[in-house]
Amino acid sequence: MLLGRVAGTLVASRKEETLEGLKFLVVRQLDVDNEDTGGYVVAADAVGAGVGEVVLYATGSSARQTVLTHNRPCDAVIMAIVDTWEVGGTEVWHK
Amino acid sequence: MLLGRVAGTLVASRKEETLEGLKFLVVRQLDVDNEDTGGYVVAADAVGAGVGEVVLYATGSSARQTVLTHNRPCDAVIMAIVDTWEVGGTEVWHK
Amino acid sequence: MLLGRVAGTLVASRKEETLEGLKFLVVRQLDVDNEDTGGYVVAADAVGAGVGEVVLYATGSSARQTVLTHNRPCDAVIMAIVDTWEVGGTEVWHK
Amino acid sequence: MLLGRVAGTLVASRKEETLEGLKFLVVRQLDVDNEDTGGYVVAADAVGAGVGEVVLYATGSSARQTVLTHNRPCDAVIMAIVDTWEVGGTEVWHK
Amino acid sequence: MLLGRVAGTLVASRKEETLEGLKFLVVRQLDVDNEDTGGYVVAADAVGAGVGEVVLYATGSSARQTVLTHNRPCDAVIMAIVDTWEVGGTEVWHK
Repeated sequence: MLLGRVAGTLVASRKEETLEGLKFLVVRQLDVDNEDTGGYVVAADAVGAGVGEVVLYATGSSARQTVLTHNRPCDAVIMAIVDTWEVGGTEVWHK
Repeated sequence: MLLGRVAGTLVASRKEETLEGLKFLVVRQLDVDNEDTGGYVVAADAVGAGVGEVVLYATGSSARQTVLTHNRPCDAVIMAIVDTWEVGGTEVWHK
Repeated sequence: MLLGRVAGTLVASRKEETLEGLKFLVVRQLDVDNEDTGGYVVAADAVGAGVGEVVLYATGSSARQTVLTHNRPCDAVIMAIVDTWEVGGTEVWHK
Repeated sequence: MLLGRVAGTLVASRKEETLEGLKFLVVRQLDVDNEDTGGYVVAADAVGAGVGEVVLYATGSSARQTVLTHNRPCDAVIMAIVDTWEVGGTEVWHK
Repeated sequence: MLLGRVAGTLVASRKEETLEGLKFLVVRQLDVDNEDTGGYVVAADAVGAGVGEVVLYATGSSARQTVLTHNRPCDAVIMAIVDTWEVGGTEVWHK
């Protein structure tokens, strides 16, 4: 999984049928120091994340292992909202 | 998923049999600011996207979770046409 | 899928048994302007491609969705020979 | 698999239900000379790794092939703690 | 698949149970000109490769399609030892 910050929302009305009802969020990738890496992903939201929240997202076939994304053409999912992480004994982020 | 703009079309008459009927599009990857990243992918089209349209595409095994691509040797699919996305409260793209 | 040009051949007599009979080709990756990217892949050939031909290749689990590669430890397959592609209304490549 | 050093821990109380009980670790990627590459991953821990330990981690669908991660939306797992590795006849790391 | 040269060995006594008996090798990635790319992978050995040998390795779910790695949390496998490859009609490597 990688760390990300929810940066915004995306609307797509014309899409593969099975994607109906999924919420897509634009997620900027973060490094372990909570800095933007410049990378991003558009992920389905499985946990009710809001804009600005720090999240974990999974990609590839693992992104289809949630109730919402099962068997759907979706390769990235937000599967957790991060409360806190620490590196080298120092807290980097606290919600 | 990643954002892309359909840049063109591709024709391949000699191919694995199961790919018969699939439409291949050349897609330039976009970043969250709607700029070309320099990356690209050739994707199967599951939603009837046209040249110039902004789309979402999925890669890997998730690209086989559409009716058109199921069980086919296809690792990228356009599964949605993007209407709009916003980042930081500002609309970046509107169809 | 990505675009590639078949650059050469590879022989491996000692290999996982199920790979017996597969033809391996060295493929240089191309960008949408038909230029070498510097990347490459060694791919199984599912379509009878020859050295110098421009091809499409699929990677990951999708590379196992051909008759030849099914259930084999193979993560890249040439699944089509490209006749032509165009970008922005201009033909970039014609076989 | 890639080499990594466990750099810290991560807590996420709101997450996909099936992830309950999984321990998430922040892992910095190492190269073969035991230097940080700058890359990282947040991985589930399948072997009881501690902060500071050098580990092997698997990504993608292979990350779901442990008892702990089976069928879960998890794309990275620590599946071994490294005792030692050598390159060119020289021991690079010894636990 | 990618080309690699076996650079060394790795020992991990504490690991996911199903990995018992697998031999892990440190593999430096090669480009088509037989030069180190700087990349590497730790791969399971399915063909009895030795240090110094030039090999092909597969990654992702395809790495689990060998008898040794089936259903194991392993995302890279050496599935062939390379005898020779040629590029542009010139032999780059001969065992």
